[in-house]
Amino acid sequence: MNVLVVNAGSSTLKYQVIDTKSHKVSAKGSCERVCFTGGTFTHAANGSKKVTENIEFPDHKVAIEVVLKDLEANGVKIEGIGHRIVQGGWYFGDSSLVDEDVLAKIREVAPLAPLHNNPEANVIEYCLEQYPDLPNVTVYDTAFHFNMPEVAKTYALPKDVCDKLHIRKYGAHGTSYRYISKKVAEMTNGEARKVVVCHIGSGASLCAIEDGKCMDTTMGLTPLDGVMMGTRCGSIDPATVCYLQREGGYTFDEVDEMMNKKSGLLAVTGGKTNDCRNVEELAAAGDPEAQLAFDMFVYKIAAKAAEMATSMCGMDTLVFTAGIGEHAPAVRAGVADRLAFMGVKMDHARNALRGDGAWCLSAKDSKVKIFVIPTDEEFMIASDVERIVNGK
Amino acid sequence: MNVLVVNAGSSTLKYQVIDTKSHKVSAKGSCERVCFTGGTFTHAANGSKKVTENIEFPDHKVAIEVVLKDLEANGVKIEGIGHRIVQGGWYFGDSSLVDEDVLAKIREVAPLAPLHNNPEANVIEYCLEQYPDLPNVTVYDTAFHFNMPEVAKTYALPKDVCDKLHIRKYGAHGTSYRYISKKVAEMTNGEARKVVVCHIGSGASLCAIEDGKCMDTTMGLTPLDGVMMGTRCGSIDPATVCYLQREGGYTFDEVDEMMNKKSGLLAVTGGKTNDCRNVEELAAAGDPEAQLAFDMFVYKIAAKAAEMATSMCGMDTLVFTAGIGEHAPAVRAGVADRLAFMGVKMDHARNALRGDGAWCLSAKDSKVKIFVIPTDEEFMIASDVERIVNGK
Repeated sequence: MNVLVVNAGSSTLKYQVIDTKSHKVSAKGSCERVCFTGGTFTHAANGSKKVTENIEFPDHKVAIEVVLKDLEANGVKIEGIGHRIVQGGWYFGDSSLVDEDVLAKIREVAPLAPLHNNPEANVIEYCLEQYPDLPNVTVYDTAFHFNMPEVAKTYALPKDVCDKLHIRKYGAHGTSYRYISKKVAEMTNGEARKVVVCHIGSGASLCAIEDGKCMDTTMGLTPLDGVMMGTRCGSIDPATVCYLQREGGYTFDEVDEMMNKKSGLLAVTGGKTNDCRNVEELAAAGDPEAQLAFDMFVYKIAAKAAEMATSMCGMDTLVFTAGIGEHAPAVRAGVADRLAFMGVKMDHARNALRGDGAWCLSAKDSKVKIFVIPTDEEFMIASDVERIVNGK
Repeated sequence: MNVLVVNAGSSTLKYQVIDTKSHKVSAKGSCERVCFTGGTFTHAANGSKKVTENIEFPDHKVAIEVVLKDLEANGVKIEGIGHRIVQGGWYFGDSSLVDEDVLAKIREVAPLAPLHNNPEANVIEYCLEQYPDLPNVTVYDTAFHFNMPEVAKTYALPKDVCDKLHIRKYGAHGTSYRYISKKVAEMTNGEARKVVVCHIGSGASLCAIEDGKCMDTTMGLTPLDGVMMGTRCGSIDPATVCYLQREGGYTFDEVDEMMNKKSGLLAVTGGKTNDCRNVEELAAAGDPEAQLAFDMFVYKIAAKAAEMATSMCGMDTLVFTAGIGEHAPAVRAGVADRLAFMGVKMDHARNALRGDGAWCLSAKDSKVKIFVIPTDEEFMIASDVERIVNGK
């Protein structure tokens, strides 16, 4: 099946056209600065060279229109559309074939992800109106975590407040975890039973997966919680928010923005960079702030990995994925070495390898197997479109 | 040395007179409902029976006045006063002999613990004025954590904001950890090197102590963070605070109060109880909310113990202390069993023992030694008075 996979962010729209059988990507591109001026459209189809054009995108509907017209112009046929949805909220434990009810629910849970769910819903609305014969399937970043154990998902806040405002741990990166979970099962012939996955990119979270099921994850009500990230602070005393308002005079919106956009690696390096590669370079060059940022980053990932392992009363497999997880051997080594006391033993020569595929990087006598597995959320979304359309 | 140890809370004042040599307590009592009407004064001295009288305490100065007059009337001589101070802030890494400068600093850092530091400072002020010949020593709950590694204490929020508002991890229960750390060293002949202490009472935190030094702790800028407690939610996504204000219409003060006073065991049991003993009883009687509360409580302590162990790249000793830690075998068993994969093996028969002293409850072949050690913050404070007065 030839599927258009759409990933609408707050000011971007990325897409791929994927053949679910061959895994081949026949078209790919992105719309940048959506809802702002100075938009650009970068696209390639049928093996042609990537081109970038200046196109204004006043909203996400214009962006998806441009994409769909470009695919038509290039003769790229699609048989279904898969939409990445950041927040499935209290409704969606699996991907859905979109109808009016699904669309309404995606908008209903939007307060949990205001910058994402509404643009995504607008894109779907356009597709339904303009291409009524194409099936649209929504794939939720939270679905994998939907049924995690009560003990992991419940917040110890007043029950009536949690019920009314739908407060619980939702997590994120669920589509990636689902993909990795399948890959790990393939690579270990089903022997991996207690798997901790570190999805470490500019957004970063960890997940405990036991027998293919989510047991716990580090992101919470929102994608702020858990490990420190490029610009996000991760877990800090929640009373800090009240303190910043009381003593610092900030509004809650300002604190929210500070914690999400101005914190993390960016903050600890004193504003120098939010990019882990630059942090490593600066640290190597002797910058003490960058060294602290790098050390904190590793420290917090290791701490959360231990927490995830504890949720399963153990860990037999540790996986690194996403931008940093796949490409930063120093981060992986730092995390693994700190977990040596749990039976994690890295083969540092294998860790230093670079490649496009998945590989094992634990020492032969390591109790815990360590893998790098490149994630592929787009392929997972395309597969879901095929599965849901076929009623499976 | 005969020392009066004063512990002034937001609406209480507790005291003991301790002989630092014999460890004997010659007088003991508490003022309740300070700053409210309907106050009571419970006191005993020189082995007499405890009596409770109705006395109004319009403020903490009246309370300490009543205590000191009662000690005089009973012929209890004191040679120094030790004050428990909740928050030493960015100033105090050790106990201090009080002078005007120390008092001013305790007030300066009060925004970090508004309900505690100011009453404590008022009590000190009274003692300095009325008993100018007695030395006053302040012992800070945060001092043990003062020099914890940067990687543990730094918050990944903008540096200028952290510097200006003194935002970092301060921790709590430091006086207890200091006492336990000494006791563990005695009990193991110095063999315990990587110790995780679970100080679990109605307030609860954990601490990683390596070679006697704090490496990390679970409470943060305030005593809200970390494990779930009687009425506190512990670590939750900090963005939840913004969400509650945005979607729930709460003020930050209301959210602060909700997280500190209406959450934790109390919230998860649906308001039934904040007392771990009752939670256990209700759970045993089949109450599903109480069962969830109990399971979450254990789950979170175990997760944080794993995190603490990771901060030291390992753990050779696990200690339980404080009300619940000393008296709730089911909590200890739940935590230890969840950590079995780290070499924690409990002797469940020894865990079931009850006693007043310290005891070892790990199985003989456990890699990690497990102890219950009753904490004694008051004795630690009295010892500090003697040490500081003697200029050590």
